[in-house]
Amino acid sequence: MIKTISISDLLNKPTEKVEFVVDRFEEMEEPENIEFPHNHNFYEILWITNGSSKHTIDFKNYEIEADTLFFISPGQLHLFEEWQDINGYCIAFTEDFFLHIFQNKNILFELSYLDNMYENPFIKIKQQDKSKLKAIVDLLLNEKAHETIQALIYVFLKQIQTLFSEKGNSQNSKHQIVIFKQFKNLVDENFTKSLALTEYANQLNVTLHNLNSIVKSVCNKTTSEIINERTILEAKRLLQFSDDNISEISYKLGFEDSSYFARYFKKHTSSSPLDFRKNIF
Amino acid sequence: MIKTISISDLLNKPTEKVEFVVDRFEEMEEPENIEFPHNHNFYEILWITNGSSKHTIDFKNYEIEADTLFFISPGQLHLFEEWQDINGYCIAFTEDFFLHIFQNKNILFELSYLDNMYENPFIKIKQQDKSKLKAIVDLLLNEKAHETIQALIYVFLKQIQTLFSEKGNSQNSKHQIVIFKQFKNLVDENFTKSLALTEYANQLNVTLHNLNSIVKSVCNKTTSEIINERTILEAKRLLQFSDDNISEISYKLGFEDSSYFARYFKKHTSSSPLDFRKNIF
Repeated sequence: MIKTISISDLLNKPTEKVEFVVDRFEEMEEPENIEFPHNHNFYEILWITNGSSKHTIDFKNYEIEADTLFFISPGQLHLFEEWQDINGYCIAFTEDFFLHIFQNKNILFELSYLDNMYENPFIKIKQQDKSKLKAIVDLLLNEKAHETIQALIYVFLKQIQTLFSEKGNSQNSKHQIVIFKQFKNLVDENFTKSLALTEYANQLNVTLHNLNSIVKSVCNKTTSEIINERTILEAKRLLQFSDDNISEISYKLGFEDSSYFARYFKKHTSSSPLDFRKNIF
Repeated sequence: MIKTISISDLLNKPTEKVEFVVDRFEEMEEPENIEFPHNHNFYEILWITNGSSKHTIDFKNYEIEADTLFFISPGQLHLFEEWQDINGYCIAFTEDFFLHIFQNKNILFELSYLDNMYENPFIKIKQQDKSKLKAIVDLLLNEKAHETIQALIYVFLKQIQTLFSEKGNSQNSKHQIVIFKQFKNLVDENFTKSLALTEYANQLNVTLHNLNSIVKSVCNKTTSEIINERTILEAKRLLQFSDDNISEISYKLGFEDSSYFARYFKKHTSSSPLDFRKNIF
């Protein structure tokens, strides 16, 4: 159903192994063989300096204006409209490439704005912060040594975290953010299995009370809400991008019968599964 | 005899633990309680932008002019004259601080120009390379987060390695440079013990033939010459900075009798130990 694209697809070099790219939009060719929507197997940071661009990530629409940084994490369902007439920078890298020189393999996880559907995936850059970010991007554009590029991407990512923190979005500790994202990954793997919440807590080596309060603190939702939202997201993906009928979908999502699934879907989206599917096409 | 100074001494903060400093000379106070010469327990990079400055490192004199990067490694005997009237940047860091975020703990060792008395400890910066180095230093001057500073110092150090490589000084592989520096450290620990060359090779897990060819390739000297030079350096240090008599010095250096030490010293320096001591004062 939904294809996962790699950086080599983005660059029209499907047969090569490409682990990173740093380039100006205006220097890049439009990708020829990318279907929309798609998943990424890499992180992508777009810095739009001129023009605007519409994106849909996991059924949420974003209109990205000039002077905005926009983040796409692996596994997110991405739809990018209007590639033309925008200027700016594209920085894309795989997790493996980026982590190569670093001892702490959690450093991407420690950034609040990546891999986080509960934080807005963009930030408007203030005038006074531009020159610093521009200096880092200029160094990146002129660099060839992989290890130096990894260090510079780190400097860039940490600088962006500072911008989020100044906005007051990220008062959580790195530890909390890492636990939250580990929980989110566990949910990705287990949401169809009706795992008890204590099971999630056990696997993360925290108490359920701890897990609940970390999740609340990071995204102001309950632990159950996260699992429900993940289930609904998958239901929407299957309704929109597969030909499975409702009972096949409810089976795939781990529901015992399709009428219970239909009630569950309606409760969370105010629409029946069939209506949702009809309204898309 | 010779004191080892730390970054806190450099900053007139002897009671604090300071692991790095990035600052402009013109903003720094002159260190009050530093005796010359001294050893560093940290790496220091001086970028002189205006004025000139005289240094003596391990009995070699250097006159450093504007637009020059100058490197001092831990353990080197350093004498810095004429602190006044120079402009530029001082970047100092301990090995522990710098390596913190990195997986590969050999990355300082892999740089040909640090910890290497056989490479000139300075490089003149060409006009076209200045803006890149300046951009990195500006980011460093404005950064507070330790991990970002570590990444930026890495970018700076790697950039400098590129300048050395462009000069054609460093055609050796990282592996060769690491083995060479490990050999140098082993010599530091063992030069008074008359260790056989095969013992050095065994401890480095290379054949003696391999060790000889790596040393030759990195600094165009023989393995024995390196050991002799280290012995002579220590002899000079003791003659200049201790009150030990010749027979005490020859004993400390592992010689069986002081007349053999005197012949050895004369052969390598064209001066007797006593003449060397007299000529200094």
